[in-house]
Amino acid sequence: MVRIITRPLLSVGHCTQLVQLRAVTPVPFPLPISLASLPLLSFPSHRALFSTTTIAPTLSSAAERVKMSSEGAAVKRQRSNKDVPYNLIYWPGIPGRGEFIRLTLEEAGAEYVDTAQVEGGIDEVMAYVKGEKPDDKTNPPIFAPPILKHGDLVISQTPNILLYLGPRLGLVPGVEDDPDALYKVNELALTALDGLSNEPHDCHHPIASELYYEDQKEEAKRKVEHYVKTRLPKFLGYFERVLNSKASGEGPYLYAGKLSYADLVLFQCLDGLKFMFPKAMAKLNKEGKHSKLFELYDAVGQRPKIKEYLGGPRRQKYSSGLYRYYEEFDIEG
Amino acid sequence: MVRIITRPLLSVGHCTQLVQLRAVTPVPFPLPISLASLPLLSFPSHRALFSTTTIAPTLSSAAERVKMSSEGAAVKRQRSNKDVPYNLIYWPGIPGRGEFIRLTLEEAGAEYVDTAQVEGGIDEVMAYVKGEKPDDKTNPPIFAPPILKHGDLVISQTPNILLYLGPRLGLVPGVEDDPDALYKVNELALTALDGLSNEPHDCHHPIASELYYEDQKEEAKRKVEHYVKTRLPKFLGYFERVLNSKASGEGPYLYAGKLSYADLVLFQCLDGLKFMFPKAMAKLNKEGKHSKLFELYDAVGQRPKIKEYLGGPRRQKYSSGLYRYYEEFDIEG
Repeated sequence: MVRIITRPLLSVGHCTQLVQLRAVTPVPFPLPISLASLPLLSFPSHRALFSTTTIAPTLSSAAERVKMSSEGAAVKRQRSNKDVPYNLIYWPGIPGRGEFIRLTLEEAGAEYVDTAQVEGGIDEVMAYVKGEKPDDKTNPPIFAPPILKHGDLVISQTPNILLYLGPRLGLVPGVEDDPDALYKVNELALTALDGLSNEPHDCHHPIASELYYEDQKEEAKRKVEHYVKTRLPKFLGYFERVLNSKASGEGPYLYAGKLSYADLVLFQCLDGLKFMFPKAMAKLNKEGKHSKLFELYDAVGQRPKIKEYLGGPRRQKYSSGLYRYYEEFDIEG
Repeated sequence: MVRIITRPLLSVGHCTQLVQLRAVTPVPFPLPISLASLPLLSFPSHRALFSTTTIAPTLSSAAERVKMSSEGAAVKRQRSNKDVPYNLIYWPGIPGRGEFIRLTLEEAGAEYVDTAQVEGGIDEVMAYVKGEKPDDKTNPPIFAPPILKHGDLVISQTPNILLYLGPRLGLVPGVEDDPDALYKVNELALTALDGLSNEPHDCHHPIASELYYEDQKEEAKRKVEHYVKTRLPKFLGYFERVLNSKASGEGPYLYAGKLSYADLVLFQCLDGLKFMFPKAMAKLNKEGKHSKLFELYDAVGQRPKIKEYLGGPRRQKYSSGLYRYYEEFDIEG
């Protein structure tokens, strides 16, 4: 586990870049306060297109089309503007909420472009955040990244993007055998995001996401104590119950004995929590009450494509995003 | 607007019913702290089944089956265990998150049973919260209400239930003409729920939902000030932009010129916010910057089935749930 102490970055009193960004945009926007003090990555643009698979020359495979038709979407469409790579539009320099999308794309070996890895990619992010894009008849303005562009489609909201990608990428049980699987997987993903991603975020920003952490440290301390002692065990206990339920099936995964995108979401949540609350997570692991949950974590981390991704250059280090390490947060609970 | 001051209810230091409920359950559960001091409703059980339509003798109509097949779900099933009314499982005595589901069912004239209106309905809620239900091979345990049971299917998470109901009830543009409409509607609903439902909830519970409001009043005061001045105008501004976008189409609704469940979600958010922050909402209305948003509110409220529902006995009054009136919250911003 790589740990980066981010407090020094956050103790900057004013943030020139943020102020500039706010000055040029006519609408309020939810730029993470901490981004302003991060250096932007500068990768050569030829590194922008990723694919971890070697067997899919086209995205419009029969399996893909079956999945599209199983969404009721593409039965009529033999050719589509969606025969192109996925495009993830997200802030550079943090795993953040974009990471849930990345893990899904990586596990599936999908081809995708990631603004976080493209020189000048932040201009693309800002065009959406400022409301300059999308500007067409079918896509509403977006509120915040992550954003997925796929052909003519532009959508935001992490669970919504996962909902779109999951069936297309084979990360939901097939609709022919299990028509309602998508709602079970979506339910599990939403609950993990609520309790193990949004609530940890609110631990360092309990009053307002636009204020610095330093401006809400007292409230954060109180929230963290409650989160680590009460909410974290409650959510881990819930997912342990899910893993022990009949509906989880055989094996280490949450639903129907198969890997779904909900498992990838839960993996990333646990990984972030291990970074943010190492003592508390170690204690919970040692207690043995959540053994299936930690087995799921290990199983996902050992999947070949995920393992390669986690050890490779595209996986970004935790810093001052969603999951943060502050020494004062590192309590046992 | 009916306003109920709920502070006296919340100032009870200990909550016998809550303690009893916690004593009998082996797992932690998220019972709203305020419920314990609310009298349970006692309606005759024959009032449990609602339908506002007179033209649908069976739920398995052709239109319904088309909608089911457009989800890719029911092409093979001529008969289904889903030829039954919907069953909403939610706490009695508060509109809460159940209200988003109710408005969707009411607008569609769907037949449904609501535990909040059934004598002893809370026992059903508690069976799910305690993990006694569901207990089968296809439905994972649920974390918290609202819960929808439909035939063999049991799902939770407000946006997930709406996602299931929306296409079935004709509250998403047809998949044949607009294959990706569901993702646009889901995105808008998720954003409204984030900023105009979950954040207002966190205004009175910034530290922990298990603690009394009285135990986090100082933090709440600070959060409310920020919410009313910054977050509320930001989210209203976003939805005003959506309503002014090309993708909203003609008329008062958010997407493609047609009523979708996202409009119902936004209506309920605005209604709750008008109850919670009357001065701030009146000021925002008077300023005229969000005129399309307030037009949407009026248009939804005037839809015949919604209007009848809002004036009828099934619409529950705001009290100590998601949207609360506290005098100290009632600032102009």
